[in-house]
Order: sequence, then structure tokens, then C-alpha cells
Amino acid sequence: MLVSESQSVSATRKISKYQKPRKQFVLYYHDNLLLDPDDVANSTSAKVTSGTKLGNYEFGMVVVFNDPVTKDQSFQSPEAATAQGFYFYNMKNDYSAWFAYTLVFNSSEYKGTLNIMGADLMPEKTRDLSVVGGTGDFFMARGIATFTTDAVEGIKYFRLKMDIKLYECY
Amino acid sequence: MLVSESQSVSATRKISKYQKPRKQFVLYYHDNLLLDPDDVANSTSAKVTSGTKLGNYEFGMVVVFNDPVTKDQSFQSPEAATAQGFYFYNMKNDYSAWFAYTLVFNSSEYKGTLNIMGADLMPEKTRDLSVVGGTGDFFMARGIATFTTDAVEGIKYFRLKMDIKLYECY
Amino acid sequence: MLVSESQSVSATRKISKYQKPRKQFVLYYHDNLLLDPDDVANSTSAKVTSGTKLGNYEFGMVVVFNDPVTKDQSFQSPEAATAQGFYFYNMKNDYSAWFAYTLVFNSSEYKGTLNIMGADLMPEKTRDLSVVGGTGDFFMARGIATFTTDAVEGIKYFRLKMDIKLYECY
Repeated sequence: MLVSESQSVSATRKISKYQKPRKQFVLYYHDNLLLDPDDVANSTSAKVTSGTKLGNYEFGMVVVFNDPVTKDQSFQSPEAATAQGFYFYNMKNDYSAWFAYTLVFNSSEYKGTLNIMGADLMPEKTRDLSVVGGTGDFFMARGIATFTTDAVEGIKYFRLKMDIKLYECY
Repeated sequence: MLVSESQSVSATRKISKYQKPRKQFVLYYHDNLLLDPDDVANSTSAKVTSGTKLGNYEFGMVVVFNDPVTKDQSFQSPEAATAQGFYFYNMKNDYSAWFAYTLVFNSSEYKGTLNIMGADLMPEKTRDLSVVGGTGDFFMARGIATFTTDAVEGIKYFRLKMDIKLYECY
Repeated sequence: MLVSESQSVSATRKISKYQKPRKQFVLYYHDNLLLDPDDVANSTSAKVTSGTKLGNYEFGMVVVFNDPVTKDQSFQSPEAATAQGFYFYNMKNDYSAWFAYTLVFNSSEYKGTLNIMGADLMPEKTRDLSVVGGTGDFFMARGIATFTTDAVEGIKYFRLKMDIKLYECY
């Protein structure tokens, strides 16, 4: 009977946030916003809606991106992945954002994708988003992506450290 | 052998929609759309695109929100969470919407987030969306968020009852 | 002890991308973009933002859709589901897209929804997106949706073959 009880709860008890992830890696995301329409070569994201009148922090400004992701802080390093998706600002009394995107891996190390969504609560030092699925080498993955702001250069460029922790992967 | 068979299907058989969720709570979501640009204080969401010509029900109107969420129907009650994300209308012959958002909890009761997406089929009395992930106290949660329209005041305000049912949580 | 070890890894080891899905079906998605504002009857999607100056492939053009989904290639066949959500183009040197949407089933065969998100890397022959959740008959489903472009008629119409593979369902 004990065995049977332990089985019945196994799927819900066996993962803990205090447990080591099954796979973990750090990536850096580089967002290079198109400001000058002539600067296409150096830009990887673009604003598709303008901020609204709801406060002074670009509430409602939506940015679509196809941003390079590297293993270290230099955006000139070889691409470990691309981050494809969008974010928007969504706070009226401070900068804060919401993201949904796909990490697309096509390297000798990994081929496949991770799908991620959640709030990037920029006033917090670290923010946890959800890894909600994956494909290829990340088939059916789930986990947490922890964001830390690593650099900000005006509104042209920012860099996020993304600590990817997969608790379910196959 | 029987034990081993039962193990092999345990992860896929042990949860049922007829089963009691592991955690369940009801929250009310209050959407206060900015109509008058001077009414920032009383508004928590803003339109970022206009409806298109596809029908007469604001098809394609996108709204970004950072809306209060309470335990009872009054939007003046203490915030149990904020709902951060967006919705858009997407039906040409009636009002219906699609949502993706994060419930952000930062109270003495809960700290963490739940990430939710799905169709808000407004013509239906109740609509089920997916809880696709969670962080903090809701680490790796999954489940269903059932929406019921609880109040509508023109286009300025509406209130949704969100019945959150978590079938996986840790 | 062996039994107990095998239990502890069962949830993470039992699904493999080489394994047969628990449920699989093919659907065709028909996107009929509103180009002429008078052609509402024959259109099921509409552009809500224009493409940006980032390249020549409509980077940042967002389309909201409520598209018919059928079991065969004809968009005049009975609807097996509707696909409700949005996509946007997000590549500066080619057409490529990103999708988030809900398959809404309301037929004698299935009632419920599947929620799907991911990159539609159009330059690839097949692309895998994540099924991140489901409701009703697809309660708590997870899996992969494999896209293949099945037809393109200018910018007015395209058809995707969606091969839905559910590895978790209840």
C-alpha cells in the first residue's frame, strides 16, 4: 500500500524548486532597437505600436524582435540561439515589460526550440518567466527562465542575462 | 508485472478533469480601459491598436493591461494579485477575445506568478483557458482558468471571475 | 530499491520524441487576410499593425485571425475547429513568423481547446511549435504541432498543414 501511495503522488512531488534542474545554462539576450530607419544592419527589433497616454513609461509600446543570443556578454560573439518574439511595456509608474518568445537553437550543440512567456518585472533584480514547451533537443521541456538586466544603453540597446533551468526534459 | 504497467501509465492517467484540483481559488479581474487620456489615475489598461474593418465587433483591437485582481467583486478591495498581459477581440460577428497574461502575486499569502493563455469565447457562459506555467509559490504549476463575465459597464469597465484550478503544482 | 529508483525518474523518462504520440491528427489551417475592406465575407484575418522599416519582409506586421480549420485541404470543407490567435512576421531578410493561438473544437467529435505557441520558421520545410495546454476533451494536453506550408496565394491566402501530436493527454 505504501508503494501504491508513493506512486500516486510521484508526478506531483518529485520536482521541487529547491531541487537541481535537469539541465541549466546561461544565455545573454541582446535587444538592438531600430531607431534610425537607415540603421537596419545594426538593428534586430522594431517598435510596432507606440506607447499610450497611460503614464510616462511607454505603456503599450509593443516591440517585435529577432535578437541574437550568446553565451557571453558580447553581442559580437557567435550566436548560441536567436530569440524570436515580442515584448511590451505594461506599467504606468515605472518601466516593466511582458515577454513571449521562442529561443531557436541551430548549432552543433543544440537543434530545437524553447517557448517562454511571462512578466519581466523590471523593477525587481531577478524575474522568473515560464518555459512552457520545447521542441527538437528540448522536446517537451518545461522550466523557469530567470532574467537579470545586464546592461542598458538608452533606449537603443539592452542586454538580459537569461538563466534557463529545465526541470522537465526528455 | 502489473505494478510495472501501472507505473508506465501513471503520469498520463493520474490527472482527470473530474478529479479535484490540488489547489483552487477564485479571483476577480477588473479591466479599466483608458478612454479619456486625462483619466490615467482610474485606468489600468490601454488600447494599442484600433479595431479593423473585419466586422463590427472591434476585431483586432489589442489592449495591454496591468489590472488589479481581488478576492471579491469590488475593485477597491486589497489587491490579491495583478494581471499583466494583453487581450484582443477576434470575432467578426460577435464580441469574443483572446488572452495571454501573467498573474503576479506579491502578498503575504503568495509570492510568484501564474502564466495563462487561451481563448475567451465571450458568447459562452464559461470559458476555459490554460494555466501553462508558474513560478515562485506556483513553481511549475499547470491547470485551467475558467472565466465568467461578472460585470460589464459599457466599454470602460468589465469584471471577470477567474476560477483557477491547478492540477499540477509542487 | 530498484523499483523505487525507477519510480523516481518515471515522469521524466517515459516520454520520448521517438515514441508514438498518445493522440495524433492532421488539420489544415486557412488564413484569408482582409485586403479589400469590402471583402469581409471572404476574410477571416486582419492586419493590426503595419510592417516596419526593418528589412523588406513585413517585419513586425501583426495579424489577428479567427481562421477555419478543416480535415482536408479545402477551406470549404466542414470546420473541424477554428484557430483563434495572432501571428507576426519577424525576420529581416526573409519571411518568417511567430504564432500564438487556440484551436477551438466544437464538433460532435471533440469539444475543447488546444493552446499553441512557437516560431513558424517559414524557410524550413517543417517547423515544430509547442502545444502548451488544453481544455475540455484536451484537458491538460501537451505536445508538438508541426507546420508545413501547404499553399500560398499571394498575400491573400495561405494554408498550413498542422500535424498535432499529443504526448500528454488524459
